[in-house]
Amino acid sequence: MKHHRSDTLAELAADMFDDIRALSRDCAGVSRPAFSEKESETLAYLSKRAEAEGLCVTEDAGRNLVFCLPEHADAPHFTVIGSHVDSVPMGGNYDGLAGVLAGLIVLIAAKRGQRALPRAVKVLAMRGEESAWFGACYLGSKMLTGSLPETEYNAVHKGDGKPLWAHLEALDIDTAPIKARQPICDLRQIDAYIELHIEQGPLLVERNIPAAVVTGIRGNFRYREVHCIGQAGHSGAVPRAYRHDPVLAFAELMHRLDTTWQHLLNTGQDLVLTSGIVATDATRHAISRIPDEIAFSLDIRSQDAETLERMRDYLASEMADIARARGVRFDLGTQSAVDPALMDPDLVADLEEAMAQVTGEAFSMASGGGHDAAVFAQAGVPSGMVFVRNRNGSHNPDEAMEIADFMVGVDILSTYMEAST
Amino acid sequence: MKHHRSDTLAELAADMFDDIRALSRDCAGVSRPAFSEKESETLAYLSKRAEAEGLCVTEDAGRNLVFCLPEHADAPHFTVIGSHVDSVPMGGNYDGLAGVLAGLIVLIAAKRGQRALPRAVKVLAMRGEESAWFGACYLGSKMLTGSLPETEYNAVHKGDGKPLWAHLEALDIDTAPIKARQPICDLRQIDAYIELHIEQGPLLVERNIPAAVVTGIRGNFRYREVHCIGQAGHSGAVPRAYRHDPVLAFAELMHRLDTTWQHLLNTGQDLVLTSGIVATDATRHAISRIPDEIAFSLDIRSQDAETLERMRDYLASEMADIARARGVRFDLGTQSAVDPALMDPDLVADLEEAMAQVTGEAFSMASGGGHDAAVFAQAGVPSGMVFVRNRNGSHNPDEAMEIADFMVGVDILSTYMEAST
Repeated sequence: MKHHRSDTLAELAADMFDDIRALSRDCAGVSRPAFSEKESETLAYLSKRAEAEGLCVTEDAGRNLVFCLPEHADAPHFTVIGSHVDSVPMGGNYDGLAGVLAGLIVLIAAKRGQRALPRAVKVLAMRGEESAWFGACYLGSKMLTGSLPETEYNAVHKGDGKPLWAHLEALDIDTAPIKARQPICDLRQIDAYIELHIEQGPLLVERNIPAAVVTGIRGNFRYREVHCIGQAGHSGAVPRAYRHDPVLAFAELMHRLDTTWQHLLNTGQDLVLTSGIVATDATRHAISRIPDEIAFSLDIRSQDAETLERMRDYLASEMADIARARGVRFDLGTQSAVDPALMDPDLVADLEEAMAQVTGEAFSMASGGGHDAAVFAQAGVPSGMVFVRNRNGSHNPDEAMEIADFMVGVDILSTYMEAST
Repeated sequence: MKHHRSDTLAELAADMFDDIRALSRDCAGVSRPAFSEKESETLAYLSKRAEAEGLCVTEDAGRNLVFCLPEHADAPHFTVIGSHVDSVPMGGNYDGLAGVLAGLIVLIAAKRGQRALPRAVKVLAMRGEESAWFGACYLGSKMLTGSLPETEYNAVHKGDGKPLWAHLEALDIDTAPIKARQPICDLRQIDAYIELHIEQGPLLVERNIPAAVVTGIRGNFRYREVHCIGQAGHSGAVPRAYRHDPVLAFAELMHRLDTTWQHLLNTGQDLVLTSGIVATDATRHAISRIPDEIAFSLDIRSQDAETLERMRDYLASEMADIARARGVRFDLGTQSAVDPALMDPDLVADLEEAMAQVTGEAFSMASGGGHDAAVFAQAGVPSGMVFVRNRNGSHNPDEAMEIADFMVGVDILSTYMEAST
């Protein structure tokens, strides 16, 4: 661990990423479980580095860390730059952590006198964003905004089987207001919430752009396990006219959805769709047997609530059409849905202006993954996000963000802060 | 067990089906494993019933049973009516057994003076047709015709792990000529091979026809496990243009094959195609992850070798096309193939003529499943088959052949025998 006051900001950032990777290294990648000792160690490390830079460090009621310039410690209103420090198991080092370090570098740049910070900024390093540990996501920001559902308050940890509230109490967090769904911070003090995050898709790599302003966070509707039920039969002996083949019905459905997807993109709408899990029944399937059913998942996302609604209708009518034509039945099972969260239009415009100053040209895009920013936006806080180019997606050890790109993101944040007063 | 000399032939047939069901009953359906004690018991039962009717019973070199009228015991040439007595585990009582009993009823009808039998007929009750036990099918008829491959000679039983040859030796069968791929019967004596079998598809039920003459046995080519390999990614974050989604590639392939199938049927060609096993990788797949691969089986069958060849080419070109367009890769794995076996055209015409006499109208169709008749046809013996209407397919306890339909099939055989001299 090197603490040289003379480090450049880029060196400082690289150094801190390396240190935190080392302290949370897994057999592959890093593991910083939500509300764990390892998460606390990560926060303690950040606290030490921030104090060494002369920043003010406090803990909030969720035992998240809050960093600011000493002169902003008692500011009645402020902008939050936030993200999370936990990771998925065997995850990459940048998902979440990049947003926290970006905020810290903005503060350090100001403290060192390299950039101005004309408005009060608090950097929020949150616990517990990843759903990998308790099956639910954004736990830290939901607690702060008083929106943690009771089912999630009682959700059990996948490792030790203990409920979330027990993990919170073990950290000496007062769970009474959380259970009562009361915000545990004063949301009226927060003028805006801004989050920098690595892009989880390949768009910026493919387009050769170092960063982007996020216009909104895609909502989704999902079916964990759709069943298409047909009729089993001998693969050689049943003529086509008498088949009720669920695999061909599934293939036709996905092909129609895919075609419609391309059509919606051509007309400028935002959509992604995925069937990530597909399986015939392993206890019965055979090469020479027309299967009686196939199970599959569907995950359909858009930044636009209307597009989601239209896709839901389209899915229902296509399924009905195929079911009728092929003599099969679709059993949708349970649907889960998340509303899209639009970023604040003024904030988006200001961040685009800042990006144009830094890189010469602004670039905007939707976020496919969910983020704490969606929770703040839904709590009524004007929210914005900046993406940083990243190879190989997230939630895996191969996340590959370049520090130079990260510094472009930091520059956009500082430029935005300097411009807005 | 009732042995009344005064039984009608239909009562006799129903009685024998019932007795053999009782002696090979499984927890569901019947089990008569290939080359097992249960198979021998079934043959012993048939022998006893045949002798009670005054038929001549002998064993051949494969320890199959041969039944005939006493006056035909030494005939230098004869027609064989054959099928097998083994079944799949928890199978139905009619697959195989119906063909053997049909031959016996033809002989008994002649012996009782109810029908004429102007030409010599030998009824062959074979062992070991089902692939469920040693992984390979038609073992009994391949042994008789000298066409059992070495791999199948050494194939191990799924239950006890012992090779086929050890099971044969336990039955005191001389394995030397079988291993040397020499016929263990004199094929030159056989004028024709005729097999009655339950239909394994729904065509006769749907068309409301009690029986059919088989024009040929579909050949096939199969891929046990094709892999379509794309690229994993975040289901929300990767735009369509940057996806290499193997599930959508599979869906497009199956949809194109299905469309082409319909087109080939419209132009009068014979084809069935099935993907019976489909699965994303359970160790990696997730709802919110574009999968990196999907595995699936393909079973494509036709009575026409040219159609199979055309489909093989079509499959390759469609896969190449989709792979190019979507940036995925298809890995076909091992192909297995069986040539189609055409039934003898003269025999088909004569059986159709017999059927027209019995039912008023002939009906012909292809066989989707494979049968011992294909082995005899490939050994150069003019072969023919008669299908009997049957509900619920075969290889399951729900096989449902009506004795009245069975007797229509028997009548077609007797009528054919009376007509041809």
